[in-house]
Amino acid sequence: MISLDPIGHVRSTLTRREHAPKQGHEGAPVARLVFEPRVILALANVQRGDELLVLTWLHEADRDTLQVHPRDDPRLPLTGVFSTRSQDRPNPIGVHRVRVTSIVGPAELEIADLEAFDGTPVLDIKTVLDRLRER
Amino acid sequence: MISLDPIGHVRSTLTRREHAPKQGHEGAPVARLVFEPRVILALANVQRGDELLVLTWLHEADRDTLQVHPRDDPRLPLTGVFSTRSQDRPNPIGVHRVRVTSIVGPAELEIADLEAFDGTPVLDIKTVLDRLRER
Repeated sequence: MISLDPIGHVRSTLTRREHAPKQGHEGAPVARLVFEPRVILALANVQRGDELLVLTWLHEADRDTLQVHPRDDPRLPLTGVFSTRSQDRPNPIGVHRVRVTSIVGPAELEIADLEAFDGTPVLDIKTVLDRLRER
Repeated sequence: MISLDPIGHVRSTLTRREHAPKQGHEGAPVARLVFEPRVILALANVQRGDELLVLTWLHEADRDTLQVHPRDDPRLPLTGVFSTRSQDRPNPIGVHRVRVTSIVGPAELEIADLEAFDGTPVLDIKTVLDRLRER
């Protein structure tokens, strides 16, 4: 068993599962990431315009689901969740590619293109690796 | 606190931290993913040639590290870990893009381009989303 303590959470106008777009590029609103004070040093180099991977804990997901109809479309055949981006899966970790639109404060970022609900725990963030300019 | 139970583990000839390439494309060996029997149904649609995101638990990482010299190069300035791909971070979840080279069995895949060590726990796998052919 592995234990995780969230580093922060999502603040968004998306508040109910039914309202979330299936993927961020289908119309997610601007959202904020609010971090725990203990991780502020780890945010020191995040800048406006950065492309980041945000890892979230999809706390409303069903962890017993192993197969789904992709995109909740019953016309599509049942598919193993590891071949989908379904939220429902044994360890529901969301991977979201987002862009930083504003540094709101030392522990708060405004970002575009995040489809997660208000209150979603944030587990980790990473740079999107640029192979021409690795860091 | 969030609890995770790994869905499987990495089997690889990479056995020591010092020997791992910094990123998969710098020369990771072929590796296998060995899954727990309870998640076999979730693997049903994974095929040879698929591009997958593999999420791992970087169990040798230091979870108290908030800033690092990128790529372990002391000439590079200390940088907040959220702007890097350092293993050392509060919740050390690895995100690896890999290609399935063979379906070894119902609970075992052979993959290319994975830089993780032998025994690394696997938390989740997802399709790399193809926006022209979402599923």
